[in-house]
Amino acid sequence: MNMQFFYAPTSISLAAHIVLDEAGAQYAPRLIDLALNEQRSEAYLSINPKGRVPALATDDGLLTETPAILDYLAQAYPEADLLPNGGRFARARALEFNAYLCSTVHVAHAHKNRGRRWADDEAALEAMRRHVPNSMLNACSLIEADMLKGPWVMGEQYTVCDPYLFAISRWLESDGVDINQLPRIAAHRLRMRQRPAVARLMSGTYV
Amino acid sequence: MNMQFFYAPTSISLAAHIVLDEAGAQYAPRLIDLALNEQRSEAYLSINPKGRVPALATDDGLLTETPAILDYLAQAYPEADLLPNGGRFARARALEFNAYLCSTVHVAHAHKNRGRRWADDEAALEAMRRHVPNSMLNACSLIEADMLKGPWVMGEQYTVCDPYLFAISRWLESDGVDINQLPRIAAHRLRMRQRPAVARLMSGTYV
Repeated sequence: MNMQFFYAPTSISLAAHIVLDEAGAQYAPRLIDLALNEQRSEAYLSINPKGRVPALATDDGLLTETPAILDYLAQAYPEADLLPNGGRFARARALEFNAYLCSTVHVAHAHKNRGRRWADDEAALEAMRRHVPNSMLNACSLIEADMLKGPWVMGEQYTVCDPYLFAISRWLESDGVDINQLPRIAAHRLRMRQRPAVARLMSGTYV
Repeated sequence: MNMQFFYAPTSISLAAHIVLDEAGAQYAPRLIDLALNEQRSEAYLSINPKGRVPALATDDGLLTETPAILDYLAQAYPEADLLPNGGRFARARALEFNAYLCSTVHVAHAHKNRGRRWADDEAALEAMRRHVPNSMLNACSLIEADMLKGPWVMGEQYTVCDPYLFAISRWLESDGVDINQLPRIAAHRLRMRQRPAVARLMSGTYV
């Protein structure tokens, strides 16, 4: 399969990028420069009308949305063993976790720099930014208490949930959250950084 | 399987509720009264620490997040044929669509009545509310133009994506969107209302 992966160094594309690398997928990385607003360029919008990253161009068409890309890659590279073993309910738990990240945690974070999706005036954007440490801590406290089983999100088995959590938890300090309040997430982050693909991507490609 | 389904009449729980009914699942419906803030009651938080609906209590444990519940039910009731046939990529497309609904469209809507998730002061909440017609129209315009193949979301096959779209598109008027700007979504909505399970749920259980 000839794949192209559209990514940006500060973005959530890191999650799928880790999975691509760890699965040994053949793909061409395509940098989209968010500082130049390249995600809204005509050229990129003709590829991905959503104007966001990540996007994965496959032989079958373009795929967007991190939970979908992660599941697709896990199924396309079954030898990497990245979906929970243990049947239908275990698999639903992984989808549940990833849906929580995309609909609640990532959205809380996005109110720092992407507030114009939801309001126009400067005072409201500033009010949103002020609230980010609080909403990120709340959202991540549920992960800390209930969801992250340890050592990996789903327990003993490393799954696609882990790079997704890592891609978000690396934002916590810049979102104003004291990581010491989330010791299990902090430990998970260190564990992730020891993986060769993660170390490689975090030294140059991602920040 | 003994299931309990926690729902609220104005909420997104309608999507999974339709699937439960159409799949012929045995379950006990449990109304959570959002007007009384019952979703944040100690009793409900002990069941679902997220304090939201829907939630599906199964023999294997509690499951939350609409995309996960929909996929789980579709897999648990394969005879209902609610996941796209046509292989791995078609299936990924359904996850992609559902992820877009949960992370972008539902989130745009939530800025009307749930703004306190993302800001505290009244002026900011009011600025968010003002923006909802705009962000909902933008989010749904992409569905109208690119995603909704017709007659159903994925094309000829009815899938879990359809009740999920319906559960959101019924909010469009009260979100300030002129449905005439979205004729294909309007037609999809009418098509959905003709399904017996949907007609049943919309006459009494849901609004």
